[in-house]
This record gives sequence, C-alpha cells and structure tokens, in this order.
Amino acid sequence: MLYRAYLQISNFISNALAVIKSPQVENFIKLLEDAYKNDRRILVIGAGRSGLVGRAFAMRLKHLGFDVYVLGDTIVSPVRKDDIVIAISGSGRTALIVTAAEAAKTVGAKVIAITSFIDSPLARLADVVVEIPGRTKISHVEDYFARQVLGLHEPLAPLGTLFEDCAAVFLDAVIAELMHRFGKTEEDLRQEHANIEV
Amino acid sequence: MLYRAYLQISNFISNALAVIKSPQVENFIKLLEDAYKNDRRILVIGAGRSGLVGRAFAMRLKHLGFDVYVLGDTIVSPVRKDDIVIAISGSGRTALIVTAAEAAKTVGAKVIAITSFIDSPLARLADVVVEIPGRTKISHVEDYFARQVLGLHEPLAPLGTLFEDCAAVFLDAVIAELMHRFGKTEEDLRQEHANIEV
Amino acid sequence: MLYRAYLQISNFISNALAVIKSPQVENFIKLLEDAYKNDRRILVIGAGRSGLVGRAFAMRLKHLGFDVYVLGDTIVSPVRKDDIVIAISGSGRTALIVTAAEAAKTVGAKVIAITSFIDSPLARLADVVVEIPGRTKISHVEDYFARQVLGLHEPLAPLGTLFEDCAAVFLDAVIAELMHRFGKTEEDLRQEHANIEV
Amino acid sequence: MLYRAYLQISNFISNALAVIKSPQVENFIKLLEDAYKNDRRILVIGAGRSGLVGRAFAMRLKHLGFDVYVLGDTIVSPVRKDDIVIAISGSGRTALIVTAAEAAKTVGAKVIAITSFIDSPLARLADVVVEIPGRTKISHVEDYFARQVLGLHEPLAPLGTLFEDCAAVFLDAVIAELMHRFGKTEEDLRQEHANIEV
Repeated sequence: MLYRAYLQISNFISNALAVIKSPQVENFIKLLEDAYKNDRRILVIGAGRSGLVGRAFAMRLKHLGFDVYVLGDTIVSPVRKDDIVIAISGSGRTALIVTAAEAAKTVGAKVIAITSFIDSPLARLADVVVEIPGRTKISHVEDYFARQVLGLHEPLAPLGTLFEDCAAVFLDAVIAELMHRFGKTEEDLRQEHANIEV
Repeated sequence: MLYRAYLQISNFISNALAVIKSPQVENFIKLLEDAYKNDRRILVIGAGRSGLVGRAFAMRLKHLGFDVYVLGDTIVSPVRKDDIVIAISGSGRTALIVTAAEAAKTVGAKVIAITSFIDSPLARLADVVVEIPGRTKISHVEDYFARQVLGLHEPLAPLGTLFEDCAAVFLDAVIAELMHRFGKTEEDLRQEHANIEV
Repeated sequence: MLYRAYLQISNFISNALAVIKSPQVENFIKLLEDAYKNDRRILVIGAGRSGLVGRAFAMRLKHLGFDVYVLGDTIVSPVRKDDIVIAISGSGRTALIVTAAEAAKTVGAKVIAITSFIDSPLARLADVVVEIPGRTKISHVEDYFARQVLGLHEPLAPLGTLFEDCAAVFLDAVIAELMHRFGKTEEDLRQEHANIEV
Repeated sequence: MLYRAYLQISNFISNALAVIKSPQVENFIKLLEDAYKNDRRILVIGAGRSGLVGRAFAMRLKHLGFDVYVLGDTIVSPVRKDDIVIAISGSGRTALIVTAAEAAKTVGAKVIAITSFIDSPLARLADVVVEIPGRTKISHVEDYFARQVLGLHEPLAPLGTLFEDCAAVFLDAVIAELMHRFGKTEEDLRQEHANIEV
C-alpha cells in the first residue's frame, strides 16, 4: 500500500505540470520579481499543511534575499500598499486565510492565491491566481477507473495531500526560476540560511 | 527553467522509491503501529524545512489518532521511556536536533532518524534509520552528466530541497499505509482535523 | 527611565487586582473546572503579544492535565460543541481572533473573552467576559496628572503592554486557584512539563 | 487563593526591582544600543514560557526598528560575528538553549543571558548576564516563614512563574528605556506593528 500510495502521489506531481497554466505562473513570477526589485515586503499566509508549504517557500524566498514574513511567526512586519500577500489554500475557503487576505486588500496589498479553485472566495479576491491541482480537480475521473480496477473505495492520499505535495514542488521550481533570473547560486542561498534554527 | 526544475524534482521523487529500503521502512512502520496500539507518545523534531516536513507528517498522525507532539509547538507533552521521537534531518548533523535526540535517548525513548546519511551523528544514535535520498546520495553522478549536457553549473533544486520534497512524499505514503493497517477512512481523518486553524 | 517604567508597570499590575470583577472571574474558573471534569477541549487564541500571554496560560493548563490546544500550533484538535475557546485580546477587535471566535460559536463551543473592552466585538459574542484593565481603561486619568507632573507626553508602557502584563499575572493566579481546587502540587505540574522543548 | 496568588506574584515583581543589578542592566542596554546603531542582528532564544517572554520582548524590539529574529520562527537570519543572541532561561540549564548559545559563540556572536543563576552553564558562557530573581533566588527564606504562618506547603506560583513574570516586566521596562534613548514615540512603534497577525 505504501508503494502504491507513493506512486500515486509522485505520478500526480509529475502529471500536474501539464495542467499548470503558464500565464498564471508568469504573472506570479513577475509580481515576485517586482517585489524583489522594489523592496516590497512579502507575507505568506496559509492554514494547516498548506501553511507549512507556504513556510517552506518563504524560507527559500528569505534565502534569496526577499523581505519576507509568515503569518504565525513572532516577528511579522506590517503589510503596506503594493506589498505582496501569498495565500495558499487548496479549497480557497479557509476562514482565517480569507479574512487575512481581505485585510491585505484593505491596506492596498496585492494578493496572490495558490489554490485548486478558481471560483473560491480566496481566488475571487486575489489579484493573481495560480491554480494547482488537487484531488478534486484532476483525479476524480482517473480515480474512478483506477478504483474500479483496484477495488479501492478510498483515495490513498487523503484530504489535501495531493494539492499540498504538488504545491510544494511547484513552489520549489519557482525558486529555481527566481535563482536563474536573479543570477543567484546555491552558495548565495547558503549565506542567508539560518545557522541556529529548530 | 521552472519547468526543468519541476521535472528534475518530480523525477527525483519518482526515482527515489527504488532506493528506499524496505526493511528500514518496515521497522519504521512497525514502531509506529506499536506506538499506536500501546498509547506511546510521538514527538516529531526537525529544523528548518525538514522541520516543516515533520510537522506535515505529525498533523496526519494526529488525524489518525496518534498522541503526537512537535518540537517548537507551545503544547508539548514530556517524552517517557518507550515513547517515540522521529527526527528529520537530511544531513543528520543539525546541532539542536542531535541534542534533542540525545535527550530523548536519556529518558529511554526510541529515536527514529529520517536522513540521507546512515553514518551521521543522528543516525548513529537512532534505534531505527530510514534513509531518504537527497542530492548528495543519488544525483551527484546523474547531475554530473546532466550538467555537462545542459551547461549548468548549479543544481536546480538548491540545498536540502530534494531530500525535503522526497521525505514529504514518503511520509505521506507512510500515512496511506497506516490508514490501511488501522482501517481508517478519509472521513475518520477529517473528524480529527482542526476546524479552527491558521 | 527603566526604573520608572518598571514601577509604572508593576504598580499597574498591583492596582489592577482591585478592578478585576469577582463574578466574572468566578464564571471563568467555573467553566474551566467543568471543562476539566467533563474532558472538554480548550483552544486558546490570541494575536501578537496577547497570543503569547495565551500560550503561557495554555502551557500551565497542559501541566494541570487539561486537553488544551493553541491556535498557531501544528497540532490542534477540532473544537466541538461545549468545548471552550479562550480568546485574549486587549482591544477585542483583532480581526483574525474575532473570526476564529465566530467559528467557535458556529460549532457550539463556549467562548471566554479576556479583554479590556466589554463592548468590543469579541466581548459581545463571548459567553463569559473577564475584563482586564489596559491603559485605556484605568490609567488615562492617572497618567494625565502623572504626565503633567513629569512633563511626559508618551506613556512608558507602549501599546498593549499594561493589558498583556496584567493578563499574564492574572492568568497565573487563575492557575494557582485551579491547583488549589484540583489538589494539584507543583510536582504534579512538573510531571506534565515538556522535557524536550524549545 | 486566586487573590493571594495574584498578590504574591505582583509583590514579587515589585520587590524584584531592588534586587536587579544596575551594572548588569547598563551592560545589557549598551549592547542593545550598539546593535541598533551598527545594524547588528538580534536572535532571541528561550524554551517554554521563558521562550514566550523572549518572543514578547522580540516583538517590541521589532517595533523599535531592530533587525530581530526568534528561534523557532520560520524566518530566521543567520547569526554573524558581533550579532547579539539574547538567551532567556530561569535555570540557565535548558539543554537546547545552552546548545544554541554555544553555536552562537562559535560564530563570534555576543551572548546575553537573562537568568536567575549566575553560575549556570548559560551564564558562564555569556558575555553579559542579567540576573532576574525567581523563586529560588529570593523567596525561599521569605516563603519559609510565609508558609509556616499560612500553613501552605506549596508555593502559589509554580515552577518558573515568578522568573517569567518578572523577566517580562523587566524587559518591558528595557523597551521604555530604549524608546527614551532612541527618541521613539508610541506612534513610531505602532507604525512597525504587524497589521495582519495571529
């Protein structure tokens, strides 16, 4: 079961690349590039495991030299006009994340939504949306046949797992793109990596 | 670059499955099963992005009904004899994590190390080791040719990225295996999922 | 200035005891006692420094044997009907905390507000309110004369400092009361104290 | 019991001021002033409730304009030569905090210990120590008589409570002193206060 689940998740990640929309990605990267060049702050928000994916991304943005903060950290700078809030939520409906994104809009920040649902409350209020597939977006049909064949009645990757793992890999690829555009080497990142951490 | 990096990471994850060692995995799962049946506490420890991978795993253990805690959370129960400490560190050398694992041994807890290095300080003190490949374990040679061909001098996935993403997918597959062994459905997990979170 | 500020804060804390309302306190303690006896979960929520005061209180509730969680921790159980949500906010207006408290009401949990403002959004939706003075509640007049005399135009304890320090001491006194009612000794608490923590 | 405990804590805080040593405080403030003027980073470390006291202090340092980080946050900058690490531990013996302080010394950072024990491992490796009384430092004798008279066999403020509450007020007084020296107003702090937080 472990191997089958591993394959299901890794195949999902591999296949998702074909589904991710280039124009959305380009808008996202462009906003990040502008933020970097114009010293805009970035605040990353997300709940539960989506929040952890956001934190992993935020760490790499920090290593790249961004002025980045994470909702839930002790040290958070205020968000101002034209700063960037990156909100990660598979469903796009997590109450506290939508409330936080609304607060960001109120002060004139730009909101980027990383979500599976283009018509969710979070996506609707966002300036830029990047759709990342989750189980509900791609795999229902596929799964239907797979489950028939396999005699399974439960998905192997429960709840938001596919969205979360897929978003994690996608955001790590965004980091590679930013490294390339900024001419940053791995050694540059290492210099900004925390040396006392837990 | 983004697409190439995405492919590099997703291919690495796919290929890693062949490298992960079944007996190590079976020992790991067995300890988790015993912990579940005997009401042992689990403490998950890790620093930086490895710590986030550990937190994502800990959330799912919680959803499965484990009595689980995370180093760094406000609410942490004491670790006792025969409790389980799961330590995640690609290098197996992170000072605070090794110190925490040593403290766990002192009180008689069992330490499971998820790491790329079987001969690291963390792995050496652990009762069970699960080797998860990172860049240094598998891809140096592959990368060598790839880089020659592509003219790249820097890896696309910097620092611990490959270990972290690979460990995340592996641990999600462990969750699928535990769901299967415990007869838990996705709905069972949903019942234990936080409904107020950030 | 440091000594004057220290005295201002410690005097404020000392004087606040006369202002705290016994019936409010008794309702609060009663809810906690009931939660303890009936295995109700407690979720502590608060933002910024008020959130830290809440976390310090939550740790002691854990040491006392409560099934307690903190908004922002990795490991959080869902809140059910009749569980307790303790919300700490000097102003009673912090957007995310009010949203979280509303979510708690929706699932039938009881909300306890620790706040300086009885007429705030948080206090209005709460089942039990405990008013803890902050600068705006007590010290404006006092400060007025003090400032005239001292020629100061700024308070020595900025923003929510007085509320936060006062709430911290008040909640530690609540812990003493609960120890007394539950017949718990310091050694009992020590047994539940984390032995691997950061 | 609640009122008696409240009084015991607030009296302890009030009385502690006479015990805190001016030269230690002056060294501490001087290091902070230098850090501010020379753009040194500050990393605040502490475990459990002492860690929360450190976080509350770190927030105010951030509001004052310091480049400050907290062990345990997602976003943490590396510590370099001449940066400042502020370690808070009543006992001065918390394993992970001593390990972290040692790591700080290795990279040439200056360590400030806030502790009750001048001869603890943490204090011994620190460049500057500020002794803050806890139960063990002041109140043993007083308590002895108090307990005889009152017939109590347990202190009303368990474990590190007195140290933690006292350190919190002391550090808030340090903030007032820094505001004064830097000519900062409450409005200045408000400008740096997070506007989206939890």
